[in-house]
Parts: sequence; structure tokens; C-alpha cells
Amino acid sequence: MDIYERSLKLHERLRGKYEVRSLVEIKDKEALSEAYTPGVAQPCREIAKNPDSAYTYTRKWNTVAVVSDGSAVLGLGNIGGLAGLPVMEGKAVLFREFGGIDAIPIVLSGQDEDDIVKAVEMIAPSFGGINLEDICAPKCFAVEKRLKEKLDIPVFHDDQHGTAIVVAAALMNALKLVNKKMEDIRIVICGAGSAGIAICKLLMECGAKHFMLTARRGIVCEGEEWLSSAQAEIAKITNREKVRGTLADAVKGADVFIGVSAPKQLSQEMVKTMAEKSIVFAMSNPEPEIYPQEALAAGAAVVGTGRSDFPNQINNVLAFPGVFRGALDVRARDITEGMKVAAARALADLVGDDLAPEYVIPAPFDARVAGAVAKAVAEQAKKDGVARL
Amino acid sequence: MDIYERSLKLHERLRGKYEVRSLVEIKDKEALSEAYTPGVAQPCREIAKNPDSAYTYTRKWNTVAVVSDGSAVLGLGNIGGLAGLPVMEGKAVLFREFGGIDAIPIVLSGQDEDDIVKAVEMIAPSFGGINLEDICAPKCFAVEKRLKEKLDIPVFHDDQHGTAIVVAAALMNALKLVNKKMEDIRIVICGAGSAGIAICKLLMECGAKHFMLTARRGIVCEGEEWLSSAQAEIAKITNREKVRGTLADAVKGADVFIGVSAPKQLSQEMVKTMAEKSIVFAMSNPEPEIYPQEALAAGAAVVGTGRSDFPNQINNVLAFPGVFRGALDVRARDITEGMKVAAARALADLVGDDLAPEYVIPAPFDARVAGAVAKAVAEQAKKDGVARL
Repeated sequence: MDIYERSLKLHERLRGKYEVRSLVEIKDKEALSEAYTPGVAQPCREIAKNPDSAYTYTRKWNTVAVVSDGSAVLGLGNIGGLAGLPVMEGKAVLFREFGGIDAIPIVLSGQDEDDIVKAVEMIAPSFGGINLEDICAPKCFAVEKRLKEKLDIPVFHDDQHGTAIVVAAALMNALKLVNKKMEDIRIVICGAGSAGIAICKLLMECGAKHFMLTARRGIVCEGEEWLSSAQAEIAKITNREKVRGTLADAVKGADVFIGVSAPKQLSQEMVKTMAEKSIVFAMSNPEPEIYPQEALAAGAAVVGTGRSDFPNQINNVLAFPGVFRGALDVRARDITEGMKVAAARALADLVGDDLAPEYVIPAPFDARVAGAVAKAVAEQAKKDGVARL
Repeated sequence: MDIYERSLKLHERLRGKYEVRSLVEIKDKEALSEAYTPGVAQPCREIAKNPDSAYTYTRKWNTVAVVSDGSAVLGLGNIGGLAGLPVMEGKAVLFREFGGIDAIPIVLSGQDEDDIVKAVEMIAPSFGGINLEDICAPKCFAVEKRLKEKLDIPVFHDDQHGTAIVVAAALMNALKLVNKKMEDIRIVICGAGSAGIAICKLLMECGAKHFMLTARRGIVCEGEEWLSSAQAEIAKITNREKVRGTLADAVKGADVFIGVSAPKQLSQEMVKTMAEKSIVFAMSNPEPEIYPQEALAAGAAVVGTGRSDFPNQINNVLAFPGVFRGALDVRARDITEGMKVAAARALADLVGDDLAPEYVIPAPFDARVAGAVAKAVAEQAKKDGVARL
């Protein structure tokens, strides 16, 4: 049985990957009257007086809604909310297993931007945070921005920022190995969708200055007619030499290739045109933009992929459980750029003295990860003035 | 410590009464790739092809959203969604403990009818059923009606129908004791809000014909200016003699008093004016419309309340876990009037040969209840053509 058949069997056997458990045993009328009526009126009254006490008397402090309209699920495209539910349940499982978080899969029947914003705003009081998932670009940018403005709980589109945090961490460490500085390097990001653009923005926060993004139609360049609104925006602060052309043109002399696109986009010939001691993160899944052995043979100094069967797996499970754990722990009202950078630095720091070309990022099952990320995120939330504890 | 202090302590200690557990252990990359990427793509593909298979590959089959806007919470009134969260968590606990159901508390930030309908419609794909809770009248009628039309999963406003089912069951048994027939009796319902109106409608389904409802302003009578829209509607099919007046006028000669109103509404003098072998269900909580000993002393033959410290506790925990269990078990697309009547009959039948004035309804902790109700509801769903299994 291949992985898809095994996965289907698992899902058929479990009939859902999460369950809701009661933390009180209702064995007699005394228990019933404490957990439910009439006693429950008292915590209700307290919260009515002081809304913050919902964090004391209910599960709000530890819950995250995993919300998707199913418009961009994995590599499957727009399959709709219901068909995306197995992914959201999987995410909820990872929140529990890695972050100790109660995560609730919420898949939506509609895909209209306004409807999504309104629905999430309506259900937000139940939750301590909102994880947006598998929402297509450019809608995902607007949905996240509007919800961040409206809500006083953290909102985080993991497809953008989770990936960006892990890439930033891996890049910080890889740069130490090749002895280059973030502000000097030329970075090419292959894939100008939500993940590519988010990676670009976070690396700017980390000090990087020189970027080219490439899409299917070529290099993202100010003035190109085919740019989406999000690409047009990022075009204003990247590719300042206004180079037009293909990926092959973009990577010439580049120090870093970051792929969030499709299989086999990067050839060995292209790698050979990159700068000395190049860094290649080829994260297309399951088949990368270039296989590690090929990139290394063509001269790359450090290579990472999204796959668990090669070194340097760049997997967002390294980020989101700790990011939300930290944000929830200090009751953050937002997740700032600073908190994302802090998460990346914490991840990078875990590698420490073991740093090597095959080890620039901790493994997904490194038990230290979520705690270290959470600690850094919580501390930064306090510095940034968004912590309420 | 009184019950309110004890309840507050319990809530403070637990910090929420439910938790979300994972049903898969993610101990290695093999487990990760089966439960999450890349394997999870396969159940997604299956559901995209055949939406019904969401019941096979996800938790949809066993989940119920407990949705409230907090506009009518217990006896506390409009305290808002967030302050109502302890009640919704309590309800989720009861769903789990009594019905084996995964229930998710969803409290809303807005109270507009259209917004509620839209939000529930948007999040519905995650769930196998929707339990509406503590939404004020007349909004609750419209919200439920519109959602029942829009959604292909059961929608049930428990404050209306849960109570109505248990009252109907208790009344069926009480009538056996006093040797009266449903179609002959005169019923007074004190309280013409959502519960009172729902009780009236369900008892009509059970064969009752003669009703008067009373509100604070007096007997609900066609043509009265103070009637709400829902009261005006029920006025067309109750009180056909068009009696105007007070509760005292209504109960004269009545066979049954059903109270869903406020403490001390029914005096002993009023009970004395009722028909021979009268039945009194005084369900105002925590203080009933009349205490059992007073009603009995004034001549009532059967008395019930909402309280656990008197015989015949009419508590909706007897209904909703079994109703949803049965509906989920056959994947019902709706909860019909017939299914509610079937639930009431199943509840009544459990009392069997032990029927006595102090035992017209099973106790909340009778372990047979949810299973018996579920079985009857599932069978009726098949008869009514709303079962998909």
C-alpha cells in the first residue's frame, strides 16, 4: 500500500482524527448543578461583568480555530471547505500534539472574502486565536489583514507565515555556514503566491534587501501587466533593477534560491550560474524544484527541501504550534512581525554548535522546538506591547 | 459555599470544561505523513468526488455545534455570546457524557438574525448537526426556520424543543394516571416565549386540542395589541373561545398547568379552581411557579418541576443527547415533528409499570434514556424519509 492508500485506511478506521472530551464527570445531580445549571450562572455573571475573565472560566485561553474555505488545499487546488476537512483535522491534531492546544477545525461553505471575514468575526469569541489555512491568494492577504484589524485575538495565516518563519530560521543558519550576511545576499523566490510573498516580507524584517520573485510568467517586475494585485505591491520593493525575464535570468549570480512553486523548476545548469556557496531551499511538495543530490552536485553549499527523507526539512510544523502556544500563554492580542522574527531566531538557535550543511534547521520531532519558539514569541509579544499577561 | 461559589471554583480550577484530543499519535514521520501531508490528500480527493464520504473520513458524523448569541442565557437575559460560553461548554459536556457526541461551543459576537443565519451556514460543513441555544424569542424561531431550510443537517433549538419533548413525555404518563385523554384536556401554558410556544406546538402534534397561553400582560388572545409576532401566530390556533383575562381566569377548570415563566405565578387558590385530578408542571428555575407540596395540598394529582430535589424533574438533558444521537446515527438531514413526538413517547415508555404520581418521567441519570430516545428518533427519521442511512 502506498502512502495515499494507507492514509485512506487510517481515516476510514478513525472516522475523524480528533474528539471532544469532557473535563468534568457528570455522575450525579451535584456535578450537574456545578458544571451546568444552576451553578454555571455564576461564571456567566463574572464574564458579563469582566469579559477578560472568560480566559479564567472557559477554554478560550487554549483554543484555536483552524479555519479554511478550501480554496487552495495542499496541491489539490480549490476543492472547497468540506473536502479540506481532513487537512484541518490533521492540523488540529498537530496543534494538540506539538503545542498542547485545543484546535477546532472549521471549514466554510462559502468562499467570498466578505463572508469569510464576517463568519470568523462572528465565531471569534469562542477562541483564543484564529489559524487561517489553505485560503487562496490574493484573498488570503485581505482576509488576514481585515481580521487582524477587527479581532483582539491572534490571527495567523499559516501557509504564509509558518513557512516564512521556518525558511528564515534555516536561512539564518545557512548564512553562518557560507559566511554571508543577510543584508548583502541576493535572494530569488520561485513562486509569487501567498507563501513566496510572505517569505519575502519576513526576510526583509530579518534584514535582507535584495530580492527577485518569479511567477509562471517570469520575473515579478514593476510594470508587468500580468501581475496580481499582491504581486504588483511586492514588485515595488523587490527587483529594483527591474530585471525582466525568466527564472534562469533571475538566478544568475544569486546567493539563495527559495522554491515554493512546482517540481523541477530549477535545473543543475541554473544552479551553476548562481554565486559561490549558494543556498537552495526547494520546497515544492512532494517533488522539489530540484533534488538535493542534483543541487549539491551543481555546486550548492546548503540544500533544504520540504521532505522528511532528505536533510534540512523545512516544515511549518516547526513554527505554528510554538507561535500559538507563545501567543496564547501571554494572551497576545496580535502576532506581530517581531514575534515571527523571534520565532525564526529561536528555531535557528536550537541548532547551536551542531550546525552543518545537513543540519541548518531542527527536525520536526525535536522535542525542544515548540517550547523554545513559544518562549521567544511570548517574550517578544511583551516587548511589542501586545501581551495582556 | 453555596452552589454558585462551588461552580465558580470548579470553573476556575478547570479553566474550561472540554478539551480537544487527538485520535492519532504523531510519534514519527510515518505517522505525520499518514495523518497529515502528503497522505491526507487522499481522503480530501475522495470527499471532493463524493461529499457524503466526509461522514466516513472526518469527524463530521459525530459533531454538533452548540451555537449561541447569548441573547437569552438561563435566567440571566441578554449577557452576550462570550458571557454565555460557560453554558455552551456545559452543554458540550452533557452531549459527550450522555450522548457520546463531540460538541463544540460556538458563541457569537453579533446578535443580528441575518448575521447568525449566515455565520452558522458558513461553518456548517464541519458539523453533523447544529444545536441552537439561548437565543431570544422571536429571533430564535426565524433563525431555526431559516437554517432548517438552508442546511442538510439537523438543526434543533433546544430551549424550545428539548423542553417540549420532556413535557410531552411527562404529560403522556400523567394522563394515564388521571385517566384523561390528550384530545380532551384543557391545557394552560404560563409563559408565551419560545419554550411555551414550542410546548404548545408539540402537544398539538401529540393530539392535544385545547390551549390557553398566558404572558405577563395576560391571556394570549387573538386581537390583543400587545402580542409579539410569534404570540399572534399561536393565538390563531389556541384559546378559540377568545377568553381575555389573567392567569387566574385561564386556569379555572383547566386540566393541566405548564409553567415556563417565573417564580410564584400559580397560587394554591388558583390550583383549587382547576379541574379534578389536575396536573401541574411548574418548571421555572430555580424557583418554580408553585412548590410541589403546595400544589398537591391544593388538590393537584401529579406535579413536576425543573428541580432535581423534587420528584418528576422535567429536564431537557433527557431529550437533546438522544435526539442528536439518533439523528446522527442515521445521518438525518432534518429533525421532524414526528421525531420529536417519537422521542417523547420513548421517554414516556421507559417509565413502564413503575408509573406513579411521583414517577411520570425517568430521572436524568437513568442510563437507559439516551439510547432509548436515540433508537426511537432514528426509526422515525427513516419513516419520515429524512434518514440517509
